[in-house]
Formats: sequence, structure tokens, C-alpha cells
Amino acid sequence: MKDHHLHWTEIERDTVLEAKIYRIDRSHRRAADGRSAHYYVMESPDWANVVALTRDEAGRDCFVMVRQFRHGTMNVSLEFPGGVVDPGESPRDAVERELLEETGYRAESFVQLGAVHPNPALMSNRCYTFLAKEAAPAEVQSLDANEIIDVELVPVEELAADRRRPEFDHAMMLVAYHLFCEWKE
Amino acid sequence: MKDHHLHWTEIERDTVLEAKIYRIDRSHRRAADGRSAHYYVMESPDWANVVALTRDEAGRDCFVMVRQFRHGTMNVSLEFPGGVVDPGESPRDAVERELLEETGYRAESFVQLGAVHPNPALMSNRCYTFLAKEAAPAEVQSLDANEIIDVELVPVEELAADRRRPEFDHAMMLVAYHLFCEWKE
Repeated sequence: MKDHHLHWTEIERDTVLEAKIYRIDRSHRRAADGRSAHYYVMESPDWANVVALTRDEAGRDCFVMVRQFRHGTMNVSLEFPGGVVDPGESPRDAVERELLEETGYRAESFVQLGAVHPNPALMSNRCYTFLAKEAAPAEVQSLDANEIIDVELVPVEELAADRRRPEFDHAMMLVAYHLFCEWKE
Repeated sequence: MKDHHLHWTEIERDTVLEAKIYRIDRSHRRAADGRSAHYYVMESPDWANVVALTRDEAGRDCFVMVRQFRHGTMNVSLEFPGGVVDPGESPRDAVERELLEETGYRAESFVQLGAVHPNPALMSNRCYTFLAKEAAPAEVQSLDANEIIDVELVPVEELAADRRRPEFDHAMMLVAYHLFCEWKE
């Protein structure tokens, strides 16, 4: 194996924190050259988000986006809809469900634009990004007990022109936007 | 305040895990409408990375990149150099230091391309991306006790043509690459 000298193997691991949607494990590992050390790893379900396109009343192409408070930064963030992939659920079905729950919008088809590891150093999970064209309002929001979410149609041209707006600085959303830009090319 | 109805305030917090480079706090919070709930927040130092450009022996423009094992995914990742911003250090000084330690390359000037929140839902910290033009080999690597890092010059054109290579799927690196593409335009 080309990268053999870079690899570490696990000797043992213990769970040190159960934190609702993820857990933290402390893992004892050994390098190919015999060194050993402890690492903390976040074991989280996969995430998925969806760049959903619709038209506003003026006929402009818009992203269906959500504005919500985020508890890490204690600030409001403008995001593409998405969330945690439930056990047994496919990422595609997760974004269809999240789009409907968070925004009330439905779409006919969902195309995967890509997937990344949110943080290979700390976390094991993946984040998937889908595209939904011709999304349309279908139902009212169906939010979890502690979710408070505003739906916002953001013209595609407006986000491109104002990409640096401060509330659009969630790395996973910039990844989704980059994948959308690659798709559009 | 426009988004007042979205905001939560903190009632109290306790640290539930100290994990080397970060800690996890459990925070009790109240929404504007009176609902309350507990959230887990990762308090981590800021991170910074640097898109460093150099020329290889064939005269091609190349990224100075690092190949290293990542303990979250247990796999090898191809990345721009970077790491944690030390206490009292500026993000700019952090990338100058990390570039030198991880690769042995030096650059004259560092321009900030942007900054994101790696994950506003879970983490409070920011990740900064810098650009360094005309980086050049200056010293040997100076790695931490458990770091094993291969340096790799990747032609800019090659990464653009093969952006989906499986070892280049670290979200923070795709953010850095997107910021580089925005700068290049």
C-alpha cells in the first residue's frame, strides 16, 4: 500500500460522551512505526443538504433557503435545508424529508451533486449535497420541538453577487454552493 | 432586531469533556418564546489553512499540499497545510508557522482569502484561509511528536481536472479551494 507509512491502527476505544446526536470516543492507536497515542473521535450520523431551486413571484430563479439560530456560534445562519440522515434512511430520502419539514417545499427529483467529509481529523461522518430543481410549496412546515426556522427565497443571482454576506458562512453551505457552481458550469 | 424570534440565550453551561484540543460544553438555553433545551457545543481554537503556490521542476504552477492520516475517518487525506491557531497567535502567523513546520516551505506574503464557521450548529470557532504566492522550500519539516506528513506538489491544473479525487474530500479544503477559485476569477 502506497501510504502504508502514514496509517494508524486502532488498539482499543471507549465512549467518553453521549451527546444527543453524536458521541465522542477516545481511541488508542498505533502508527506503522510503532508510536502510539490517544485520539478523540466524534461518531456522528451522516448529514445531507439540498440546493432546491424554485421561482419567485417575479419569475426569478431562487434558492429555497432557511434562516435559523445555530447553537455553536450563537448566531443566525442562512442555509440550504438539510439535517441528519436517520438510521436506515438514504441521504436522498433525508433531503426530501428535510426539505418538506423545514420549508414545506416538495420536488420531483433529487440529484446528488457530491459528498465530503465534514472534518476527517475529528469526525467519521459524511455530508451529502443534492440538487432539486423545480421545487414548489406543498405543505406547511413540520418542525421538531425546538426548531424555529424562517423560510427565505434567495435569488440565485443575488447570492452570487453577495456571496460574502455574513450570515452565509457555514462551511457545509459553502461546500454545497461550490458543488452547485461546478454543476452549473 | 429582525431575527429576534430566532435567537436563544444561555442560562448556564457546564464543561462535560476536555478532549486535548477542544472541550465540549453542555449549555442550557431559552428561546425568545420561552421554550428551553440543552445543547452540546464544541469549544475549539480557530483553525487556519493556506493555499500555497510554487513552481515544480517542470515550471508548472503547483499547490504545496500535505498527505496525512486523519483519525476521524481513519483514512489518508490530501490537504492544504494548516492547523490550530495557537493562543495569542494571529491566523496569518499560524499559517506561516504551519506551512514551514509541515512542509518546510516559506513565503513572503500571506493574503486572507476568507473565513468560515466550520459548523455553526456544533462549534463556535472559525476557519481562515490564506493565499501564499511564490512559496519556496527553505527548511526541513519540523513535525509534532505524532505527526507523519508527506509533502506533495500538485499542479493547479491537475487538481482542477481531477477535483473529485477521493482523498480530496475534506470540507475545509474544498472551502479553501472555492475561495482560491473566487480569488482567481
